[in-house]
Amino acid sequence: MRIFEAFTSDEPILTVSEISRRTGLHVATASRLVAELVSYGFLTRDDDRRVRVGTRLWELATRASPTLTLRNAAMPFMEGVHDIVGHHVQLGVLDGDEVLFLERLTAPGAVINYTHIAGRLPLHVSSSGLVLLAHGSVDLRRRVIDATLHSYTPDTPATAARLRGVLADVRRQGYAYCPGYVHPDALGIAAPVRDARGEVVAALAVIVPNEAGATSVVPVVRTAARGVSRALGAPDAVGQRRDPGGSGSSSLIG
Amino acid sequence: MRIFEAFTSDEPILTVSEISRRTGLHVATASRLVAELVSYGFLTRDDDRRVRVGTRLWELATRASPTLTLRNAAMPFMEGVHDIVGHHVQLGVLDGDEVLFLERLTAPGAVINYTHIAGRLPLHVSSSGLVLLAHGSVDLRRRVIDATLHSYTPDTPATAARLRGVLADVRRQGYAYCPGYVHPDALGIAAPVRDARGEVVAALAVIVPNEAGATSVVPVVRTAARGVSRALGAPDAVGQRRDPGGSGSSSLIG
Repeated sequence: MRIFEAFTSDEPILTVSEISRRTGLHVATASRLVAELVSYGFLTRDDDRRVRVGTRLWELATRASPTLTLRNAAMPFMEGVHDIVGHHVQLGVLDGDEVLFLERLTAPGAVINYTHIAGRLPLHVSSSGLVLLAHGSVDLRRRVIDATLHSYTPDTPATAARLRGVLADVRRQGYAYCPGYVHPDALGIAAPVRDARGEVVAALAVIVPNEAGATSVVPVVRTAARGVSRALGAPDAVGQRRDPGGSGSSSLIG
Repeated sequence: MRIFEAFTSDEPILTVSEISRRTGLHVATASRLVAELVSYGFLTRDDDRRVRVGTRLWELATRASPTLTLRNAAMPFMEGVHDIVGHHVQLGVLDGDEVLFLERLTAPGAVINYTHIAGRLPLHVSSSGLVLLAHGSVDLRRRVIDATLHSYTPDTPATAARLRGVLADVRRQGYAYCPGYVHPDALGIAAPVRDARGEVVAALAVIVPNEAGATSVVPVVRTAARGVSRALGAPDAVGQRRDPGGSGSSSLIG
């Protein structure tokens, strides 16, 4: 397990001695385990005997992935948003106290974006993370708000008071609007995706240049996120206007 | 390793006793190993204590995946094809003696397709597989041609003579055109994707209804596959008209 964790998107190819150093395993042990994992196709060796993650591991992890249904439901809507908005369209889920990005569509020449597929960002800096945090458990919010929050830019909501305010806005508005939180030139806009139980299970976001005209993108993102929610069987997808009690204030009547 | 292999796209959620049965591990051993894998986040348990593959495994397998670069290079072109053609657009690589599908874009109401993301098909039945086989090693071709070939439909090239003819066509034409090979209603069209060394590393394919008008899709698929090849730094991408010697018959002159 530690061997798999040694490989990252920045360093996907390692020698056995690098694996030994990163895992704390003795070189002989690392060498034996690597050989065993190579025999299963979970790792592969290149012509220089350097090691990387095998396609077989990706296949096993993906074919039974709990997020494949979500990702497949989201893709047609993400493609639609990408056709209209360009730049970056991405899908993130809560994993631990971070947002994990399952998918990203990118146009050539798009604005700067720190996200990668299978990459992570802290919840308080990214529009997707703020949506997931705003709809997360009380415990999660307390943990994140009480932690030391890193400022990526002067606009990052990195104090407890500021973050509380941003989260209240996200819940009230039904989306996160995050100009320059991660990088001064980039603006993230994210909306919640709900499953058949009405729970927020993901955030759909666009990253566009940090310009005033970007507000026109908000309804595009919200519409797509609701479309994905409907595709997942969400009972209704009107965000904060949902009426879990099913009383007379139903959106069908209002 | 056997535990991960027990989960499939059709059965992504298993009980410990099902895992024990599929892996041949004693229930107590399976139970202990599952608990350990759950503690690393490589497996997760649902509310009924049933087990599935964890998002952490997907993350580790994907972030350092050897195919992520290929997939990211291909996606903008695949999206373009999907906008124009609809139905299914997919990207396959050779893995063992099968085609493994890394990515698939699907439109609602598209024609029947047996492919899944992280799914496999035999090389001789699918348009992607035939492209990979046509450009594969002599050993691979011999192995596949000498094997007993399963017929999915009466049109599947399932005899050695017929398969040899189809592979020759693929090499000569620069694409595979496969009406009804997998299912009578579906037509696969695939073209080769080359890397910076000029090697065929993937096939880009569309699956459309099996109708005569589908020939108009051929140039769309070939253009996209060449675009991906260029994005990967392929030396030139003119398929069978490539001139590795760089002599006077260069495509710039012809």
